[in-house]
Amino acid sequence: MKHFSDKVIESISTKKSFVIVGIDLSIDRLPGYFLENMQNKYKSEDEFIENSLFEYAKDIIDATFENSIGIKIQSAYFEQYSYIGMKALKRISDYASSLGHVVILDAKKSDISSTAAAYANAYLGNVKVLNNNKSYYSFDAMTINPLLGFDSIKPFLDVIYENKKGIFILVKTSNPSSQDFQDLYANNKKIYEIIASKVFEWTNSSFKGYNNYNDVGVVVGATQPEAGKIIRSILPNYIFLLPGVGAQGGDLNNLKLFVDSNNSGIIVNSSRDIIYAYEKIDYKDFEKSAYLACKRLKDDINNSI
Amino acid sequence: MKHFSDKVIESISTKKSFVIVGIDLSIDRLPGYFLENMQNKYKSEDEFIENSLFEYAKDIIDATFENSIGIKIQSAYFEQYSYIGMKALKRISDYASSLGHVVILDAKKSDISSTAAAYANAYLGNVKVLNNNKSYYSFDAMTINPLLGFDSIKPFLDVIYENKKGIFILVKTSNPSSQDFQDLYANNKKIYEIIASKVFEWTNSSFKGYNNYNDVGVVVGATQPEAGKIIRSILPNYIFLLPGVGAQGGDLNNLKLFVDSNNSGIIVNSSRDIIYAYEKIDYKDFEKSAYLACKRLKDDINNSI
Repeated sequence: MKHFSDKVIESISTKKSFVIVGIDLSIDRLPGYFLENMQNKYKSEDEFIENSLFEYAKDIIDATFENSIGIKIQSAYFEQYSYIGMKALKRISDYASSLGHVVILDAKKSDISSTAAAYANAYLGNVKVLNNNKSYYSFDAMTINPLLGFDSIKPFLDVIYENKKGIFILVKTSNPSSQDFQDLYANNKKIYEIIASKVFEWTNSSFKGYNNYNDVGVVVGATQPEAGKIIRSILPNYIFLLPGVGAQGGDLNNLKLFVDSNNSGIIVNSSRDIIYAYEKIDYKDFEKSAYLACKRLKDDINNSI
Repeated sequence: MKHFSDKVIESISTKKSFVIVGIDLSIDRLPGYFLENMQNKYKSEDEFIENSLFEYAKDIIDATFENSIGIKIQSAYFEQYSYIGMKALKRISDYASSLGHVVILDAKKSDISSTAAAYANAYLGNVKVLNNNKSYYSFDAMTINPLLGFDSIKPFLDVIYENKKGIFILVKTSNPSSQDFQDLYANNKKIYEIIASKVFEWTNSSFKGYNNYNDVGVVVGATQPEAGKIIRSILPNYIFLLPGVGAQGGDLNNLKLFVDSNNSGIIVNSSRDIIYAYEKIDYKDFEKSAYLACKRLKDDINNSI
């Protein structure tokens, strides 16, 4: 079984891309011609929703496959449609996984240890049903909010250690209000620096893959170059998941502050600029639009670091 | 439409109870006789899982209805079973809601504003599907992790303002490692105090119900009496959701440190000690066991504050 970090680093190297495509789908933002087709094909509303989400995501995955290393599925957009959306989420992650793509669940989980264990087992491990171990999902990694501290992270560490999977711990987020708490100073260090140091302390010894990267990564907003530089100095061989380019304003020219000494160790998420690229590029062809937007982002990133 | 805070406060007064029952169900911890019945009744595994979760929860809700004000559903335990669990979660929340019970989703959501809006609309508002507004869930309130700051909370505030629903913001959690980050000092105040002050600043002016309580509440571990006293001084008319009694060791004698000047303003969650009370009280009757455990907790709390 390959380590999560190796899957990522080798995929970056093979695809010559740092791009991960964010699958953040809202039905009502999908192109009209696509929705019309789906309405003709699926008569019940539940089937229409589930299959619209799945088929659109599948087409986006196919269109962006050669220029991206994988997908990050934002759970919120599927939870919007209750269990119907969650069925689509499962089918999308299974499909991407079957292609060998890196598949990350973005749900920013945080809870006390017994509940954290339930999340970890649900998405990255096995769940017992009448003494059978069931594995419902095929995610490689998921995002975690660290506010509750070590015992809320530990169950995830146990599960990824056993299954060579990954997690990404939020360290400094991409949104403007991340400053409210993450930038407060405690003992002359910002909270996000303290979180980064704790991530190192908790995980440095036991989660390294063959490429010397850690299976535990961190989320750092691409909008936060100053923080990126500091966090990189604390976590030299950790993979940074960078949201915030495009719609949120993160500047690609700053990505050199986030990369490691091999000019690697980052994955750059883009969601709306790829999945809804048809709004700007070609209203009648969302696949070609996504392909072009993804290829352009790949090239722009490669040129900027 | 009644404010969330009024629904809670009036229910406390009518039921003479501060208890909220935590629905944290794992199939393999349900009683053997119950699971056997379910296996005979439902032949497909998916139907067995969905209906075991739903019917067990329904029986627990019925057994504890008179001695509790509502239920708190822990999302993780349903996410364990993928969309099948989410279907049960929806049916359980609909059922409890139809009885007039207070129904809280415990999922500790945190994300940037556009994604936070998707969560808020999904669980407390409406979601657009082909220009129709759909409301999949019937939750009164949900729990929120504040690490991302104000712009991650604002979409929830917008949705609860419009629908008179509620949220509970994590301020000091019940787990031992809550000290890792929540107890750090910044500007001579602990992070949890700063979060509590921000909650006041963000919400004090606009979310009051007729009973003068705020529709925004906070989560404070019942295991954290010292913090509870401090947070109560910052948030006098806010409802405290207190997890951590029972299995986690929170002492009922400390609850007087959490109550407000009316000896109210708290809801005390108990999960495993009620839903699995059959393990200690009567292996052959989980409903009676839950009834007794819930009644005892209600009485013990009332005697201790």
